[in-house]
Amino acid sequence: MAGSPQDAVHMARAVELAARGHGHTSPNPVVGCVVLDAAGRVAGEGFHAYAGGPHAEVAALREAGERARGGTAYVTLEPCDHTGRTGPCSGALLEAGVARVVHAVADPNPKAAGGAGRLRAAGVAVTAGVLAEEAERVNAEWLTWARLGRPHVTWKFAATLDGRSAAADGTSQWITSPEARADVHRLRARSDAIVAGIGTVLADDSRLTARPALAEGRPLRVVVDPDARTPATARVLDGAAPTLVAVAADTVTTLGADLLRVPRDGRGLDLHALLKELAAREVVSVFLEGGPTLAGAFLARGLVDRVVAYVAPALLGAGAAALGEAGVRTIGEAHRLIFDEVSPIGPDVRLVARPAPPHPRREK
Amino acid sequence: MAGSPQDAVHMARAVELAARGHGHTSPNPVVGCVVLDAAGRVAGEGFHAYAGGPHAEVAALREAGERARGGTAYVTLEPCDHTGRTGPCSGALLEAGVARVVHAVADPNPKAAGGAGRLRAAGVAVTAGVLAEEAERVNAEWLTWARLGRPHVTWKFAATLDGRSAAADGTSQWITSPEARADVHRLRARSDAIVAGIGTVLADDSRLTARPALAEGRPLRVVVDPDARTPATARVLDGAAPTLVAVAADTVTTLGADLLRVPRDGRGLDLHALLKELAAREVVSVFLEGGPTLAGAFLARGLVDRVVAYVAPALLGAGAAALGEAGVRTIGEAHRLIFDEVSPIGPDVRLVARPAPPHPRREK
Repeated sequence: MAGSPQDAVHMARAVELAARGHGHTSPNPVVGCVVLDAAGRVAGEGFHAYAGGPHAEVAALREAGERARGGTAYVTLEPCDHTGRTGPCSGALLEAGVARVVHAVADPNPKAAGGAGRLRAAGVAVTAGVLAEEAERVNAEWLTWARLGRPHVTWKFAATLDGRSAAADGTSQWITSPEARADVHRLRARSDAIVAGIGTVLADDSRLTARPALAEGRPLRVVVDPDARTPATARVLDGAAPTLVAVAADTVTTLGADLLRVPRDGRGLDLHALLKELAAREVVSVFLEGGPTLAGAFLARGLVDRVVAYVAPALLGAGAAALGEAGVRTIGEAHRLIFDEVSPIGPDVRLVARPAPPHPRREK
Repeated sequence: MAGSPQDAVHMARAVELAARGHGHTSPNPVVGCVVLDAAGRVAGEGFHAYAGGPHAEVAALREAGERARGGTAYVTLEPCDHTGRTGPCSGALLEAGVARVVHAVADPNPKAAGGAGRLRAAGVAVTAGVLAEEAERVNAEWLTWARLGRPHVTWKFAATLDGRSAAADGTSQWITSPEARADVHRLRARSDAIVAGIGTVLADDSRLTARPALAEGRPLRVVVDPDARTPATARVLDGAAPTLVAVAADTVTTLGADLLRVPRDGRGLDLHALLKELAAREVVSVFLEGGPTLAGAFLARGLVDRVVAYVAPALLGAGAAALGEAGVRTIGEAHRLIFDEVSPIGPDVRLVARPAPPHPRREK
């Protein structure tokens, strides 16, 4: 059911509202809701603002009050039907006397699903699938986590126009502008975890923190370090946020850090297993910051859901490539993407892309 | 003299008119002209449409007729004062009775310069420098040729988001889209010469023609081939347009092609000498199409005036880099650019950049 043009207008607003929750709702989804009165006038708006806070429907119904009776509710995600930290939204909608519910994306969560069925059973008209693509996009992180049982992975890199992340002598400070680096911190802050390889930690000794952070102790820092080579003095272990050092199951180490033991996969770690461990720790979104080897391994396994590239107006002609071996031998195997956004960030350009459907290299 | 806001408005229009000549005026500049009557109303517009055709001022004065008397002429380039294929524009402006002339860029051509002086001497008010930057940009090719005695060089490359122009096995068809390839043909057609290295000719056997061409026998094709390795059967020698094979002065060859003998410079040719030879043949604009080695050599010598990058939404992680050794060892020596345009071309993105002032690596 595609809904009417009016449905699309209200759902677009609900998607806009949902986006306001980005970075604050994990491990919950972002959700937006618009409630119309019986005459079709907007009576209430709401979004899920933080984990543990009121759901979008409840916030919108609260604002609408008695005007919701006989009206329509637009929700970006199918209303939940279970009692978690808050009561079920299906019940709240019924109680408010809403006559029709329009939602964009079905709830993939087995615990929460069923809201539409309960509403229909109670005589409420339910329309599904309105602006589904937009609502999928705004909630990509949580939907990936809920459907695949692993975090959504955004790979970020900074490079020159010729695709290099360092000069021939290894120097790389600074390829991109202060504006681009500030944008990286903004995206880090919205993520549940920042993941980097041991090569990057040894080369840059980065703290891998978000400045400013959106919440104390977030994001989690994860070092992919099969052989436990992280120095005890590394800045990533500075206590500014929790840090997990992911080491191979068979690695013997005296490193005084929180270790996550993961099976080996070739020369690295089993990244599927790593992500499942993180998902179990309620890590919904991962911000992957290289280096080239780790990024290539994620890509080769079909584990990159979004690419954010900061391209600087500069040329090097030599030096480390932004991306290493990614399982591609011939042009037909290239990881094909779609550009979603191209925008100037200071003197640089930021390109945001996602895998082209069908996903070029599904998990294997 | 910066001129009034009104001056800027009319000069902006003149710059717009000048751009219409792109690809048709070589070896002449592109020039645009707007003529106002004495009351400040637009009376005539013109641009230099093709080499040998009327100059912009003459075209605009023709349209203005008697209304030019006591009026103002806006010209993107200082009116010429010499008689070439057409009469001097300074004389035409005087004859039309124009009271004021506003130009953006001084004529760097010693043969043609002096128009402003002659006008002033005859009592015409002359304002110089209005919208000079915009007028420089629209005429970048010709101004480079006239000032430096070498063609303006646009380096074009197509690459994946990670900066690769071929996969690990050498395959590269097609990294970019049909839309991007059509855009390349449009830019080729606007150039006087297309330059490629012997590596590219051997690898791709490209014809290096523009389809469609703007004029018969254009652009000139130039193969940089120090040791005369171009096969007699190469498509670049197909006769569809003239071809010059630039070989080292000491190379002995029986290749039945037009040879341009150029001194050696290290493992390649002396590119300054090559460009001077082309400039002498009235090649004002060069479209450099790689490969990576030749592009690096041009860049290292400060001989790239514009970069046009077609970036495909794809990742390879291995394979040939778009740019080879370009004389950069450390990050401080990076060739720094400024992005002038970022635009979608089909599914790809085209980025146009020019060297950041001061030119990062002046000719040495």
